[in-house]
Amino acid sequence: MAKVRINAFSISLDGYGAGPRQDLEHPLGVGGEALHAWVFPTYSFLHMHGGGGEGGERGVDDGFAARGFEEIGAWILGRNMFAPSRGAWPPDDAWRGWWGEEPPYHVPVFVLSHYAREPLVMEGGTTFTFVTDGAHAALERARAAADGRDVRIGGGVATARQYLRDGLVDEVHLAVSPVLLGAGEHLFAGLDLAALGYRCAAVEAGERATHVTLRRDASA
Amino acid sequence: MAKVRINAFSISLDGYGAGPRQDLEHPLGVGGEALHAWVFPTYSFLHMHGGGGEGGERGVDDGFAARGFEEIGAWILGRNMFAPSRGAWPPDDAWRGWWGEEPPYHVPVFVLSHYAREPLVMEGGTTFTFVTDGAHAALERARAAADGRDVRIGGGVATARQYLRDGLVDEVHLAVSPVLLGAGEHLFAGLDLAALGYRCAAVEAGERATHVTLRRDASA
Repeated sequence: MAKVRINAFSISLDGYGAGPRQDLEHPLGVGGEALHAWVFPTYSFLHMHGGGGEGGERGVDDGFAARGFEEIGAWILGRNMFAPSRGAWPPDDAWRGWWGEEPPYHVPVFVLSHYAREPLVMEGGTTFTFVTDGAHAALERARAAADGRDVRIGGGVATARQYLRDGLVDEVHLAVSPVLLGAGEHLFAGLDLAALGYRCAAVEAGERATHVTLRRDASA
Repeated sequence: MAKVRINAFSISLDGYGAGPRQDLEHPLGVGGEALHAWVFPTYSFLHMHGGGGEGGERGVDDGFAARGFEEIGAWILGRNMFAPSRGAWPPDDAWRGWWGEEPPYHVPVFVLSHYAREPLVMEGGTTFTFVTDGAHAALERARAAADGRDVRIGGGVATARQYLRDGLVDEVHLAVSPVLLGAGEHLFAGLDLAALGYRCAAVEAGERATHVTLRRDASA
């Protein structure tokens, strides 16, 4: 059966998924880029936009980066993952995401927002659809759009926490980066993953991060 | 120069150093034993009380367990690490620690307590001295007793946090066990280790835990 997955979700040793004081200059919060340092040298990241070319490492980290795109039929993103703006969309908003005209998704992407907006059809199969009736509704639409493949919850932290808290995620891959953030958005705080039925299925050392796989025991 | 160290400090993937609802039956809190599962099969643990004999693994986990006893001249323990009782010591208290007549310390051990008590002289070089004038005073006495060797902060979580928060710890080794606790005593919550000057020095995969070494940059 199709799963709901979180993949390549980067956190610090002390559990933060984003640094403090997010703004345009620091979309991942201060210090937040360091959480993702493991993915930048990977083949999967460097070739995310397709095409050939040289470069990119093909080790354990790359395997996890690649897996996050396999068998995914739809994505869900929080509003802040899509745009730096907050609140109502600016009039004549020309923002089309962080990823250029051909985003790496290549499938339908549902963006949680309190504010309605027309869908954006991008190149390469990605469409951004803005969902204003909540996380559960977005998941229903994503499941339907995924047509039997998995749905990936892309983040950010608040969005991941919301789906975890509601027991809607089957599998979580965390990439634990060798950094301390000390403050920011904590993935685990107040979220009792054990009581929600999650168990550690595997821990694997990568080149630049430690990869933790959690699975939910549906009987819990 | 002699250091203040935390070694072999076990935490869960979600950052808990002890489970919830500690009592006599669950001295590490419910589920807390699982945090320490990595150390039980090690040679160092199985031969903690000296002697020869068979058994015990000699891998990465064992190396970290062994290192925690090397070059240590004195220990500091929180009261709850020493005894299951709380509050004033019971009259005619016969409790002499969890470790039998020959504890594995073999050096002076300073136990933080709000209640005075005569020192306990054990076999093999361990003495338990009860310190009622606070964490800083205990550290001064431990440094003096260590005579140029390192001081190890043994725990529990509250004691470790206290010394970390005051910037008194030079080096921390965390053993991250592949379990989720979901609740209990959190090592990191409200403790900004980055701001306190701690940096990740190394991450190493062991057989049953991931070993994280943090060091404090004294210039921070």
